[in-house]
Amino acid sequence: MSASRDRSRFSQGNPLDPEQIAHADLPIGVFDSGVGGLTVLRALRQRLPGESTIYLGDTARLPYGTKSATSILRYASQASDHLVSRGVKALVIACNTASAVAVDDLRARFAPLPVIGVVEPGAQAAVAASRGQRHLVLATESTVKRHAYARAITALAPGAAVDERSCQMFVALAEEGWTDGPVAAGVAAEYLSVVMAQAPEVRPDTVVLGCTHFPLLADVIRAAIGPVPVVVDSAYTTAEAVARVLAESRALRRSAAPPTTRLLATDGADRFAKVGARFLGEPLATPDVEIVDL
Amino acid sequence: MSASRDRSRFSQGNPLDPEQIAHADLPIGVFDSGVGGLTVLRALRQRLPGESTIYLGDTARLPYGTKSATSILRYASQASDHLVSRGVKALVIACNTASAVAVDDLRARFAPLPVIGVVEPGAQAAVAASRGQRHLVLATESTVKRHAYARAITALAPGAAVDERSCQMFVALAEEGWTDGPVAAGVAAEYLSVVMAQAPEVRPDTVVLGCTHFPLLADVIRAAIGPVPVVVDSAYTTAEAVARVLAESRALRRSAAPPTTRLLATDGADRFAKVGARFLGEPLATPDVEIVDL
Repeated sequence: MSASRDRSRFSQGNPLDPEQIAHADLPIGVFDSGVGGLTVLRALRQRLPGESTIYLGDTARLPYGTKSATSILRYASQASDHLVSRGVKALVIACNTASAVAVDDLRARFAPLPVIGVVEPGAQAAVAASRGQRHLVLATESTVKRHAYARAITALAPGAAVDERSCQMFVALAEEGWTDGPVAAGVAAEYLSVVMAQAPEVRPDTVVLGCTHFPLLADVIRAAIGPVPVVVDSAYTTAEAVARVLAESRALRRSAAPPTTRLLATDGADRFAKVGARFLGEPLATPDVEIVDL
Repeated sequence: MSASRDRSRFSQGNPLDPEQIAHADLPIGVFDSGVGGLTVLRALRQRLPGESTIYLGDTARLPYGTKSATSILRYASQASDHLVSRGVKALVIACNTASAVAVDDLRARFAPLPVIGVVEPGAQAAVAASRGQRHLVLATESTVKRHAYARAITALAPGAAVDERSCQMFVALAEEGWTDGPVAAGVAAEYLSVVMAQAPEVRPDTVVLGCTHFPLLADVIRAAIGPVPVVVDSAYTTAEAVARVLAESRALRRSAAPPTTRLLATDGADRFAKVGARFLGEPLATPDVEIVDL
Protein backbone atom coordinates (compact mmCIF):
# COMPACT_ATOMS: atom_id res chain seq x y z
CA MET A 1 0.00 0.00 0.00
CA SER A 2 2.66 2.49 1.03
CA ALA A 3 4.67 1.75 -2.11
CA SER A 4 1.71 2.44 -4.35
CA ARG A 5 0.94 5.68 -2.49
CA ASP A 6 4.55 6.72 -2.95
CA ARG A 7 4.40 6.07 -6.66
CA SER A 8 1.29 8.20 -7.12
CA ARG A 9 2.87 10.98 -5.10
CA PHE A 10 5.95 10.97 -7.34
CA SER A 11 3.91 11.14 -10.49
CA GLN A 12 2.40 14.40 -9.24
CA GLY A 13 5.83 16.00 -9.17
CA ASN A 14 6.37 16.22 -5.43
CA PRO A 15 9.94 16.36 -4.08
CA LEU A 16 11.72 13.09 -3.35
CA ASP A 17 12.21 11.88 0.20
CA PRO A 18 15.73 11.00 1.42
CA GLU A 19 15.20 7.28 0.83
CA GLN A 20 14.24 7.94 -2.78
CA ILE A 21 17.28 10.16 -3.27
CA ALA A 22 19.54 7.46 -1.89
CA HIS A 23 17.92 5.02 -4.32
CA ALA A 24 18.38 7.43 -7.24
CA ASP A 25 22.08 7.72 -6.41
CA LEU A 26 22.63 3.98 -6.81
CA PRO A 27 24.48 2.91 -9.94
CA ILE A 28 22.94 1.37 -13.05
CA GLY A 29 23.89 -2.30 -13.19
CA VAL A 30 25.01 -3.61 -16.57
CA PHE A 31 25.53 -7.29 -17.23
CA ASP A 32 27.05 -9.06 -20.22
CA SER A 33 28.66 -12.40 -21.00
CA GLY A 34 31.99 -10.66 -21.61
CA VAL A 35 33.37 -7.41 -22.99
CA GLY A 36 30.85 -6.81 -25.80
CA GLY A 37 28.40 -5.11 -23.45
CA LEU A 38 30.99 -2.38 -22.89
CA THR A 39 29.58 -0.85 -26.11
CA VAL A 40 26.31 -0.50 -24.18
CA LEU A 41 28.12 0.88 -21.13
CA ARG A 42 29.87 3.38 -23.39
CA ALA A 43 26.54 4.51 -24.91
CA LEU A 44 24.98 4.71 -21.43
CA ARG A 45 27.76 6.93 -20.11
CA GLN A 46 27.45 9.19 -23.16
CA ARG A 47 23.66 9.45 -22.85
CA LEU A 48 23.61 9.71 -19.03
CA PRO A 49 26.97 11.24 -18.06
CA GLY A 50 25.77 11.98 -14.52
CA GLU A 51 25.03 8.34 -13.67
CA SER A 52 27.22 5.86 -11.83
CA THR A 53 27.51 2.42 -13.38
CA ILE A 54 28.63 -1.03 -12.37
CA TYR A 55 29.42 -3.53 -15.13
CA LEU A 56 29.77 -7.28 -14.75
CA GLY A 57 31.24 -9.35 -17.60
CA ASP A 58 30.83 -13.11 -17.10
CA THR A 59 34.11 -13.82 -18.86
CA ALA A 60 34.54 -17.18 -17.13
CA ARG A 61 31.57 -18.55 -19.01
CA LEU A 62 31.49 -16.62 -22.27
CA PRO A 63 30.35 -16.91 -24.96
CA TYR A 64 26.66 -17.34 -24.18
CA GLY A 65 25.86 -17.24 -27.92
CA THR A 66 26.49 -20.92 -28.42
CA LYS A 67 25.10 -22.28 -25.11
CA SER A 68 21.72 -23.78 -24.19
CA ALA A 69 18.82 -21.75 -22.80
CA THR A 70 19.03 -23.57 -19.47
CA SER A 71 22.68 -22.64 -18.98
CA ILE A 72 22.17 -19.05 -20.16
CA LEU A 73 19.26 -18.57 -17.77
CA ARG A 74 21.28 -19.91 -14.85
CA TYR A 75 24.32 -17.75 -15.66
CA ALA A 76 22.23 -14.60 -16.21
CA SER A 77 20.43 -15.13 -12.89
CA GLN A 78 23.67 -15.58 -10.96
CA ALA A 79 25.26 -12.51 -12.52
CA SER A 80 22.16 -10.41 -11.94
CA ASP A 81 21.91 -11.59 -8.32
CA HIS A 82 25.46 -10.39 -7.80
CA LEU A 83 24.79 -6.91 -9.20
CA VAL A 84 21.50 -6.58 -7.32
CA SER A 85 23.18 -7.62 -4.06
CA ARG A 86 25.62 -4.71 -4.51
CA GLY A 87 22.72 -2.27 -4.93
CA VAL A 88 21.55 -1.03 -8.34
CA LYS A 89 18.56 1.07 -9.38
CA ALA A 90 18.14 -0.58 -12.78
CA LEU A 91 19.54 -3.66 -14.46
CA VAL A 92 20.63 -3.63 -18.10
CA ILE A 93 21.05 -6.98 -19.84
CA ALA A 94 23.67 -5.83 -22.33
CA CYS A 95 23.89 -9.15 -24.11
CA ASN A 96 21.57 -10.08 -26.93
CA THR A 97 21.61 -13.76 -26.12
CA ALA A 98 20.81 -13.25 -22.43
CA SER A 99 18.17 -10.67 -23.37
CA ALA A 100 16.55 -13.11 -25.76
CA VAL A 101 16.52 -15.93 -23.22
CA ALA A 102 16.26 -14.41 -19.77
CA VAL A 103 14.68 -10.95 -19.70
CA ASP A 104 11.18 -12.12 -18.66
CA ASP A 105 12.54 -14.35 -15.89
CA LEU A 106 14.82 -11.59 -14.60
CA ARG A 107 11.92 -9.09 -14.55
CA ALA A 108 9.84 -11.50 -12.49
CA ARG A 109 12.77 -12.24 -10.20
CA PHE A 110 13.66 -8.61 -9.40
CA ALA A 111 10.33 -6.74 -9.70
CA PRO A 112 9.84 -3.79 -9.21
CA LEU A 113 13.48 -3.16 -10.30
CA PRO A 114 13.50 -2.03 -13.95
CA VAL A 115 15.17 -4.66 -16.15
CA ILE A 116 16.10 -3.48 -19.65
CA GLY A 117 17.29 -5.87 -22.36
CA VAL A 118 18.89 -4.91 -25.66
CA VAL A 119 16.46 -6.68 -27.99
CA GLU A 120 13.27 -4.67 -27.35
CA PRO A 121 14.83 -1.19 -27.72
CA GLY A 122 16.53 -2.30 -30.93
CA ALA A 123 13.29 -3.72 -32.33
CA GLN A 124 11.37 -0.56 -31.39
CA ALA A 125 13.93 1.68 -33.06
CA ALA A 126 13.95 -0.45 -36.20
CA VAL A 127 10.16 -0.43 -36.50
CA ALA A 128 9.96 3.30 -35.80
CA ALA A 129 12.60 4.12 -38.42
CA SER A 130 11.50 1.76 -41.18
CA ARG A 131 9.27 2.86 -44.08
CA GLY A 132 8.78 -0.51 -45.69
CA GLN A 133 9.15 -2.71 -42.59
CA ARG A 134 11.81 -4.83 -44.26
CA HIS A 135 14.45 -5.54 -41.63
CA LEU A 136 17.81 -7.25 -41.74
CA VAL A 137 19.04 -8.46 -38.34
CA LEU A 138 22.72 -9.42 -37.94
CA ALA A 139 23.30 -11.38 -34.74
CA THR A 140 24.96 -14.40 -33.13
CA GLU A 141 23.93 -17.95 -33.85
CA SER A 142 21.78 -18.29 -30.74
CA THR A 143 19.99 -14.94 -31.09
CA VAL A 144 19.08 -15.91 -34.64
CA LYS A 145 18.07 -19.42 -33.63
CA ARG A 146 15.68 -18.02 -31.02
CA HIS A 147 14.24 -15.46 -33.51
CA ALA A 148 14.42 -12.90 -30.72
CA TYR A 149 14.36 -9.89 -33.05
CA ALA A 150 11.81 -11.36 -35.47
CA ARG A 151 9.41 -11.89 -32.56
CA ALA A 152 10.03 -8.44 -31.07
CA ILE A 153 9.71 -6.70 -34.45
CA THR A 154 6.59 -8.53 -35.62
CA ALA A 155 4.95 -7.94 -32.23
CA LEU A 156 5.19 -4.24 -33.05
CA ALA A 157 4.69 -4.42 -36.83
CA PRO A 158 2.78 -7.63 -37.60
CA GLY A 159 3.37 -7.58 -41.36
CA ALA A 160 7.11 -6.85 -41.14
CA ALA A 161 9.62 -8.93 -43.10
CA VAL A 162 12.58 -9.88 -40.90
CA ASP A 163 15.69 -11.51 -42.37
CA GLU A 164 17.86 -12.77 -39.50
CA ARG A 165 21.46 -13.77 -40.26
CA SER A 166 24.02 -15.36 -38.00
CA CYS A 167 27.39 -13.57 -38.38
CA GLN A 168 29.52 -15.34 -35.80
CA MET A 169 32.82 -14.28 -37.41
CA PHE A 170 32.07 -10.63 -36.65
CA VAL A 171 32.52 -11.49 -32.96
CA ALA A 172 36.01 -12.87 -33.59
CA LEU A 173 36.93 -9.88 -35.76
CA ALA A 174 35.84 -7.41 -33.08
CA GLU A 175 37.72 -9.28 -30.35
CA GLU A 176 40.86 -9.50 -32.50
CA GLY A 177 40.59 -5.76 -33.26
CA TRP A 178 40.34 -6.38 -37.00
CA THR A 179 37.56 -3.87 -37.51
CA ASP A 180 38.73 -2.55 -40.87
CA GLY A 181 40.95 -3.75 -43.70
CA PRO A 182 40.55 -6.50 -46.26
CA VAL A 183 39.75 -9.40 -43.90
CA ALA A 184 36.88 -7.54 -42.21
CA ALA A 185 35.59 -6.44 -45.62
CA GLY A 186 35.86 -10.02 -46.92
CA VAL A 187 33.92 -11.44 -43.97
CA ALA A 188 31.21 -8.80 -44.35
CA ALA A 189 30.97 -9.48 -48.09
CA GLU A 190 30.67 -13.22 -47.46
CA TYR A 191 27.79 -12.75 -45.02
CA LEU A 192 26.03 -9.97 -46.87
CA SER A 193 26.49 -10.78 -50.58
CA VAL A 194 23.08 -12.51 -50.69
CA VAL A 195 21.43 -9.35 -49.38
CA MET A 196 23.38 -7.12 -51.74
CA ALA A 197 22.18 -9.23 -54.66
CA GLN A 198 18.50 -8.74 -53.84
CA ALA A 199 16.24 -6.63 -56.04
CA PRO A 200 15.86 -3.08 -54.68
CA GLU A 201 12.17 -3.53 -53.88
CA VAL A 202 12.80 -6.42 -51.50
CA ARG A 203 16.05 -5.20 -49.97
CA PRO A 204 15.91 -4.34 -46.27
CA ASP A 205 15.50 -0.69 -45.34
CA THR A 206 16.88 -1.15 -41.82
CA VAL A 207 19.86 -3.13 -40.57
CA VAL A 208 19.82 -4.06 -36.88
CA LEU A 209 23.22 -4.72 -35.27
CA GLY A 210 21.87 -7.45 -33.00
CA CYS A 211 25.08 -8.25 -31.13
CA THR A 212 27.00 -5.94 -28.82
CA HIS A 213 30.22 -6.69 -30.73
CA PHE A 214 28.89 -5.47 -34.05
CA PRO A 215 28.93 -1.69 -33.52
CA LEU A 216 32.73 -1.94 -33.85
CA LEU A 217 32.16 -3.23 -37.38
CA ALA A 218 29.43 -0.76 -38.31
CA ASP A 219 31.53 0.96 -40.99
CA VAL A 220 32.55 -2.31 -42.61
CA ILE A 221 28.93 -3.53 -42.58
CA ARG A 222 27.70 -0.25 -44.07
CA ALA A 223 30.34 -0.45 -46.79
CA ALA A 224 29.48 -4.07 -47.65
CA ILE A 225 25.74 -3.69 -47.73
CA GLY A 226 25.50 -0.51 -49.75
CA PRO A 227 22.92 2.19 -49.22
CA VAL A 228 20.54 1.32 -46.38
CA PRO A 229 18.53 4.15 -44.84
CA VAL A 230 18.91 3.08 -41.22
CA VAL A 231 21.46 1.12 -39.20
CA VAL A 232 20.15 0.43 -35.70
CA ASP A 233 22.85 0.14 -33.04
CA SER A 234 21.21 -1.49 -30.06
CA ALA A 235 23.80 -0.03 -27.68
CA TYR A 236 22.42 3.46 -28.30
CA THR A 237 18.77 2.43 -28.40
CA THR A 238 19.24 0.63 -25.08
CA ALA A 239 20.89 3.68 -23.49
CA GLU A 240 17.91 5.72 -24.68
CA ALA A 241 15.50 3.20 -23.12
CA VAL A 242 17.36 3.35 -19.80
CA ALA A 243 17.26 7.16 -19.83
CA ARG A 244 13.50 7.03 -20.40
CA VAL A 245 12.87 4.52 -17.61
CA LEU A 246 14.97 6.50 -15.11
CA ALA A 247 13.25 9.76 -16.03
CA GLU A 248 9.80 8.19 -15.79
CA SER A 249 10.50 6.71 -12.39
CA ARG A 250 12.27 9.90 -11.23
CA ALA A 251 15.36 7.87 -10.51
CA LEU A 252 17.95 10.11 -12.17
CA ARG A 253 20.98 10.64 -9.96
CA ARG A 254 20.99 13.73 -7.68
CA SER A 255 24.37 13.53 -5.96
CA ALA A 256 26.83 16.32 -6.63
CA ALA A 257 29.75 13.89 -6.28
CA PRO A 258 31.28 12.72 -9.56
CA PRO A 259 29.73 9.51 -10.85
CA THR A 260 31.72 6.29 -10.67
CA THR A 261 32.18 3.33 -12.97
CA ARG A 262 33.08 -0.08 -11.60
CA LEU A 263 34.15 -3.00 -13.76
CA LEU A 264 33.75 -6.59 -12.59
CA ALA A 265 34.60 -9.78 -14.44
CA THR A 266 34.44 -13.44 -13.53
CA ASP A 267 37.83 -14.29 -15.09
CA GLY A 268 40.89 -12.83 -16.78
CA ALA A 269 41.34 -9.19 -15.70
CA ASP A 270 44.29 -8.84 -18.14
CA ARG A 271 42.33 -9.83 -21.18
CA PHE A 272 39.24 -7.93 -20.06
CA ALA A 273 41.30 -4.75 -19.87
CA LYS A 274 43.11 -5.36 -23.15
CA VAL A 275 40.14 -6.34 -25.31
CA GLY A 276 37.58 -4.32 -23.34
CA ALA A 277 39.35 -1.03 -24.00
CA ARG A 278 38.42 -1.35 -27.69
CA PHE A 279 34.75 -1.78 -26.80
CA LEU A 280 34.63 0.92 -24.13
CA GLY A 281 36.61 3.29 -26.32
CA GLU A 282 39.07 4.30 -23.63
CA PRO A 283 42.21 2.82 -22.08
CA LEU A 284 41.80 0.19 -19.37
CA ALA A 285 44.41 -1.37 -17.09
CA THR A 286 44.26 -4.71 -15.30
CA PRO A 287 43.78 -3.11 -11.82
CA ASP A 288 40.63 -1.38 -13.15
CA VAL A 289 38.96 -4.79 -13.27
CA GLU A 290 37.81 -6.56 -10.10
CA ILE A 291 37.49 -10.35 -10.35
CA VAL A 292 34.40 -11.84 -8.68
CA ASP A 293 33.22 -15.43 -8.19
CA LEU A 294 29.60 -16.19 -9.01
CA MET B 1 55.40 -54.57 -5.32
CA SER B 2 52.89 -56.74 -7.09
CA ALA B 3 52.32 -54.03 -9.69
CA SER B 4 56.00 -53.73 -10.43
CA ARG B 5 56.35 -57.52 -10.64
CA ASP B 6 53.41 -57.51 -13.05
CA ARG B 7 55.03 -54.92 -15.21
CA SER B 8 58.30 -56.82 -15.52
CA ARG B 9 56.37 -60.00 -16.25
CA PHE B 10 54.52 -58.21 -19.09
CA SER B 11 57.68 -56.94 -20.63
CA GLN B 12 58.84 -60.53 -20.98
CA GLY B 13 55.80 -61.25 -23.16
CA ASN B 14 53.79 -63.41 -20.76
CA PRO B 15 50.02 -63.63 -21.27
CA LEU B 16 47.72 -61.14 -19.54
CA ASP B 17 45.54 -62.18 -16.62
CA PRO B 18 41.75 -61.56 -16.80
CA GLU B 19 41.98 -58.36 -14.78
CA GLN B 20 44.55 -56.96 -17.20
CA ILE B 21 42.42 -57.93 -20.16
CA ALA B 22 39.38 -56.20 -18.64
CA HIS B 23 41.53 -53.12 -18.12
CA ALA B 24 42.83 -53.25 -21.69
CA ASP B 25 39.24 -53.38 -22.97
CA LEU B 26 38.37 -50.06 -21.31
CA PRO B 27 38.01 -47.08 -23.63
CA ILE B 28 40.55 -44.30 -24.12
CA GLY B 29 39.21 -41.13 -22.52
CA VAL B 30 39.59 -37.94 -24.54
CA PHE B 31 38.88 -34.54 -23.05
CA ASP B 32 38.64 -31.14 -24.72
CA SER B 33 37.07 -27.77 -24.04
CA GLY B 34 34.71 -28.24 -26.98
CA VAL B 35 34.61 -29.82 -30.42
CA GLY B 36 38.18 -29.07 -31.53
CA GLY B 37 39.52 -32.20 -29.82
CA LEU B 38 37.43 -34.26 -32.21
CA THR B 39 40.35 -33.85 -34.63
CA VAL B 40 42.39 -35.79 -32.07
CA LEU B 41 39.60 -38.36 -31.64
CA ARG B 42 39.50 -38.77 -35.41
CA ALA B 43 43.26 -39.30 -35.58
CA LEU B 44 43.08 -41.76 -32.65
CA ARG B 45 40.38 -43.84 -34.34
CA GLN B 46 42.38 -43.92 -37.56
CA ARG B 47 45.59 -44.91 -35.79
CA LEU B 48 43.94 -47.33 -33.35
CA PRO B 49 40.79 -48.59 -35.10
CA GLY B 50 40.33 -51.43 -32.61
CA GLU B 51 40.05 -49.15 -29.56
CA SER B 52 36.91 -47.90 -27.87
CA THR B 53 36.85 -44.19 -27.03
CA ILE B 54 34.89 -41.83 -24.85
CA TYR B 55 35.07 -38.12 -25.60
CA LEU B 56 34.03 -35.28 -23.31
CA GLY B 57 33.73 -31.73 -24.69
CA ASP B 58 33.29 -29.12 -21.98
CA THR B 59 31.10 -26.99 -24.24
CA ALA B 60 29.42 -25.23 -21.31
CA ARG B 61 32.69 -23.54 -20.44
CA LEU B 62 34.52 -23.20 -23.73
CA PRO B 63 36.70 -21.56 -24.84
CA TYR B 64 39.53 -22.27 -22.40
CA GLY B 65 41.95 -20.31 -24.59
CA THR B 66 41.05 -16.97 -23.06
CA LYS B 67 40.56 -18.06 -19.41
CA SER B 68 42.87 -17.94 -16.39
CA ALA B 69 45.10 -20.85 -15.34
CA THR B 70 43.11 -21.31 -12.12
CA SER B 71 39.83 -21.74 -13.99
CA ILE B 72 41.38 -23.98 -16.65
CA LEU B 73 42.89 -26.25 -14.01
CA ARG B 74 39.58 -26.56 -12.17
CA TYR B 75 37.63 -27.29 -15.36
CA ALA B 76 40.20 -29.82 -16.60
CA SER B 77 40.18 -31.64 -13.25
CA GLN B 78 36.39 -31.86 -13.16
CA ALA B 79 36.17 -33.13 -16.74
CA SER B 80 38.95 -35.66 -16.16
CA ASP B 81 37.34 -36.87 -12.93
CA HIS B 82 34.17 -37.55 -14.88
CA LEU B 83 35.93 -39.61 -17.53
CA VAL B 84 38.00 -41.52 -14.98
CA SER B 85 34.87 -42.30 -12.94
CA ARG B 86 33.37 -43.97 -16.04
CA GLY B 87 36.48 -46.13 -16.45
CA VAL B 88 39.25 -45.35 -18.94
CA LYS B 89 42.66 -46.92 -19.51
CA ALA B 90 44.32 -43.67 -20.64
CA LEU B 91 43.41 -40.03 -20.61
CA VAL B 92 44.12 -37.76 -23.57
CA ILE B 93 44.04 -33.99 -22.98
CA ALA B 94 43.06 -33.05 -26.52
CA CYS B 95 43.19 -29.33 -25.87
CA ASN B 96 46.36 -27.32 -26.19
CA THR B 97 45.40 -24.84 -23.49
CA ALA B 98 44.48 -27.52 -20.96
CA SER B 99 47.62 -29.50 -21.89
CA ALA B 100 49.76 -26.41 -21.34
CA VAL B 101 48.21 -25.66 -17.97
CA ALA B 102 47.08 -28.93 -16.43
CA VAL B 103 48.95 -31.97 -17.68
CA ASP B 104 51.37 -32.23 -14.73
CA ASP B 105 48.58 -31.84 -12.17
CA LEU B 106 46.43 -34.40 -13.93
CA ARG B 107 49.31 -36.90 -14.05
CA ALA B 108 49.83 -36.50 -10.32
CA ARG B 109 46.10 -36.77 -9.67
CA PHE B 110 45.50 -39.97 -11.66
CA ALA B 111 48.84 -41.84 -11.45
CA PRO B 112 49.51 -44.52 -12.64
CA LEU B 113 46.90 -43.84 -15.35
CA PRO B 114 48.72 -42.62 -18.51
CA VAL B 115 47.85 -38.98 -19.19
CA ILE B 116 48.81 -37.72 -22.66
CA GLY B 117 48.66 -34.05 -23.63
CA VAL B 118 48.91 -32.64 -27.14
CA VAL B 119 51.83 -30.27 -26.57
CA GLU B 120 54.62 -32.77 -25.87
CA PRO B 121 53.97 -35.08 -28.85
CA GLY B 122 53.76 -32.02 -31.14
CA ALA B 123 57.03 -30.63 -29.80
CA GLN B 124 58.75 -34.01 -30.13
CA ALA B 125 57.62 -34.42 -33.73
CA ALA B 126 58.72 -30.89 -34.61
CA VAL B 127 62.18 -31.35 -33.11
CA ALA B 128 62.61 -34.76 -34.74
CA ALA B 129 61.62 -33.46 -38.17
CA SER B 130 63.49 -30.16 -38.14
CA ARG B 131 66.91 -29.71 -39.73
CA GLY B 132 67.58 -26.16 -38.62
CA GLN B 133 65.49 -26.16 -35.41
CA ARG B 134 63.60 -23.05 -36.51
CA HIS B 135 59.98 -23.59 -35.53
CA LEU B 136 56.83 -21.60 -36.13
CA VAL B 137 54.01 -22.42 -33.69
CA LEU B 138 50.47 -21.29 -34.52
CA ALA B 139 48.20 -21.47 -31.50
CA THR B 140 45.55 -19.71 -29.40
CA GLU B 141 46.25 -16.62 -27.35
CA SER B 142 46.68 -18.50 -24.07
CA THR B 143 48.89 -21.28 -25.44
CA VAL B 144 51.17 -18.59 -26.87
CA LYS B 145 51.05 -16.54 -23.68
CA ARG B 146 52.16 -19.56 -21.66
CA HIS B 147 54.94 -20.40 -24.18
CA ALA B 148 53.92 -24.02 -23.86
CA TYR B 149 55.48 -25.10 -27.16
CA ALA B 150 58.60 -22.96 -26.78
CA ARG B 151 59.30 -24.59 -23.43
CA ALA B 152 58.59 -28.10 -24.72
CA ILE B 153 60.68 -27.61 -27.87
CA THR B 154 63.68 -25.97 -26.18
CA ALA B 155 63.65 -28.68 -23.50
CA LEU B 156 64.38 -31.12 -26.32
CA ALA B 157 66.52 -28.85 -28.54
CA PRO B 158 68.05 -26.17 -26.33
CA GLY B 159 69.26 -23.92 -29.16
CA ALA B 160 65.98 -24.02 -31.10
CA ALA B 161 64.37 -20.81 -32.35
CA VAL B 162 60.62 -20.87 -31.67
CA ASP B 163 58.33 -18.18 -33.11
CA GLU B 164 54.91 -18.50 -31.42
CA ARG B 165 51.96 -16.67 -32.98
CA SER B 166 48.44 -16.30 -31.71
CA CYS B 167 45.94 -16.96 -34.52
CA GLN B 168 42.62 -16.69 -32.72
CA MET B 169 40.63 -16.06 -35.93
CA PHE B 170 41.49 -19.55 -37.20
CA VAL B 171 39.29 -20.92 -34.41
CA ALA B 172 36.30 -18.88 -35.60
CA LEU B 173 36.95 -19.88 -39.23
CA ALA B 174 37.06 -23.58 -38.36
CA GLU B 175 33.86 -23.36 -36.28
CA GLU B 176 32.06 -21.44 -39.03
CA GLY B 177 33.21 -24.02 -41.59
CA TRP B 178 35.04 -21.40 -43.67
CA THR B 179 38.10 -23.56 -44.20
CA ASP B 180 38.81 -22.49 -47.76
CA GLY B 181 37.97 -19.53 -49.98
CA PRO B 182 39.08 -15.90 -49.93
CA VAL B 183 38.25 -15.09 -46.29
CA ALA B 184 40.28 -18.00 -44.94
CA ALA B 185 43.13 -17.11 -47.29
CA GLY B 186 42.95 -13.47 -46.20
CA VAL B 187 43.08 -14.36 -42.50
CA ALA B 188 46.04 -16.68 -43.07
CA ALA B 189 47.84 -14.00 -45.10
CA GLU B 190 47.23 -11.44 -42.35
CA TYR B 191 48.74 -13.68 -39.68
CA LEU B 192 51.54 -15.11 -41.75
CA SER B 193 52.72 -12.25 -43.98
CA VAL B 194 55.48 -11.38 -41.51
CA VAL B 195 56.82 -14.91 -41.71
CA MET B 196 56.52 -15.01 -45.50
CA ALA B 197 58.60 -11.84 -45.71
CA GLN B 198 61.52 -13.33 -43.77
CA ALA B 199 64.82 -14.12 -45.44
CA PRO B 200 65.08 -17.80 -46.42
CA GLU B 201 67.88 -18.48 -43.92
CA VAL B 202 65.80 -17.43 -40.92
CA ARG B 203 62.44 -18.74 -42.07
CA PRO B 204 61.00 -21.61 -40.01
CA ASP B 205 61.50 -25.12 -41.31
CA THR B 206 58.61 -26.58 -39.31
CA VAL B 207 55.13 -25.25 -38.66
CA VAL B 208 53.33 -26.66 -35.63
CA LEU B 209 49.52 -26.51 -35.69
CA GLY B 210 49.24 -25.87 -31.96
CA CYS B 211 45.46 -25.79 -31.67
CA THR B 212 43.08 -28.65 -32.35
CA HIS B 213 41.01 -26.42 -34.65
CA PHE B 214 43.86 -25.69 -37.00
CA PRO B 215 44.18 -29.01 -38.87
CA LEU B 216 40.96 -28.00 -40.65
CA LEU B 217 42.86 -25.03 -42.04
CA ALA B 218 46.07 -26.90 -42.85
CA ASP B 219 45.70 -26.39 -46.63
CA VAL B 220 45.06 -22.66 -46.29
CA ILE B 221 48.02 -22.29 -43.92
CA ARG B 222 50.28 -24.26 -46.27
CA ALA B 223 49.19 -22.08 -49.18
CA ALA B 224 49.79 -18.85 -47.27
CA ILE B 225 53.17 -19.73 -45.85
CA GLY B 226 54.76 -21.11 -48.96
CA PRO B 227 57.23 -23.99 -49.00
CA VAL B 228 57.85 -25.33 -45.49
CA PRO B 229 59.36 -28.79 -45.20
CA VAL B 230 57.20 -30.00 -42.30
CA VAL B 231 53.75 -29.15 -40.96
CA VAL B 232 53.17 -30.87 -37.60
CA ASP B 233 49.56 -31.73 -36.86
CA SER B 234 49.39 -32.44 -33.15
CA ALA B 235 46.24 -34.54 -33.57
CA TYR B 236 48.28 -37.18 -35.39
CA THR B 237 51.37 -36.91 -33.22
CA THR B 238 49.16 -37.33 -30.14
CA ALA B 239 47.45 -40.40 -31.59
CA GLU B 240 50.92 -41.83 -32.25
CA ALA B 241 51.94 -41.14 -28.64
CA VAL B 242 48.82 -42.88 -27.32
CA ALA B 243 49.48 -45.90 -29.54
CA ARG B 244 53.02 -46.11 -28.16
CA VAL B 245 51.92 -45.84 -24.52
CA LEU B 246 49.24 -48.50 -24.94
CA ALA B 247 51.66 -50.85 -26.69
CA GLU B 248 54.35 -50.32 -24.06
CA SER B 249 51.95 -50.99 -21.20
CA ARG B 250 50.36 -53.87 -23.13
CA ALA B 251 47.00 -52.19 -22.81
CA LEU B 252 45.83 -52.58 -26.42
CA ARG B 253 42.24 -53.80 -26.59
CA ARG B 254 41.67 -57.57 -26.86
CA SER B 255 37.89 -57.87 -27.10
CA ALA B 256 36.47 -59.30 -30.31
CA ALA B 257 33.38 -57.09 -29.98
CA PRO B 258 33.35 -53.99 -32.19
CA PRO B 259 34.83 -50.95 -30.48
CA THR B 260 32.51 -48.17 -29.38
CA THR B 261 32.73 -44.37 -29.39
CA ARG B 262 30.76 -42.32 -26.88
CA LEU B 263 30.41 -38.56 -27.13
CA LEU B 264 29.65 -36.45 -24.06
CA ALA B 265 29.27 -32.68 -23.83
CA THR B 266 28.43 -30.32 -21.00
CA ASP B 267 26.06 -28.19 -23.09
CA GLY B 268 24.35 -27.87 -26.46
CA ALA B 269 24.03 -31.32 -28.08
CA ASP B 270 22.61 -29.72 -31.26
CA ARG B 271 25.57 -27.46 -31.84
CA PHE B 272 28.06 -30.14 -30.80
CA ALA B 273 26.64 -32.46 -33.46
CA LYS B 274 26.46 -29.77 -36.14
CA VAL B 275 29.91 -28.22 -35.68
CA GLY B 276 31.56 -31.39 -34.37
CA ALA B 277 30.80 -33.33 -37.53
CA ARG B 278 33.25 -31.09 -39.41
CA PHE B 279 36.01 -31.87 -36.90
CA LEU B 280 35.29 -35.58 -36.62
CA GLY B 281 34.91 -35.87 -40.38
CA GLU B 282 31.68 -37.85 -40.26
CA PRO B 283 28.00 -37.05 -39.78
CA LEU B 284 26.73 -36.60 -36.23
CA ALA B 285 23.17 -36.25 -34.97
CA THR B 286 21.97 -34.65 -31.74
CA PRO B 287 21.04 -38.02 -30.12
CA ASP B 288 24.67 -39.15 -30.60
CA VAL B 289 25.68 -36.63 -27.92
CA GLU B 290 24.99 -37.24 -24.24
CA ILE B 291 24.78 -34.13 -22.05
CA VAL B 292 26.50 -34.42 -18.65
CA ASP B 293 26.76 -32.04 -15.70
CA LEU B 294 30.20 -31.57 -14.16
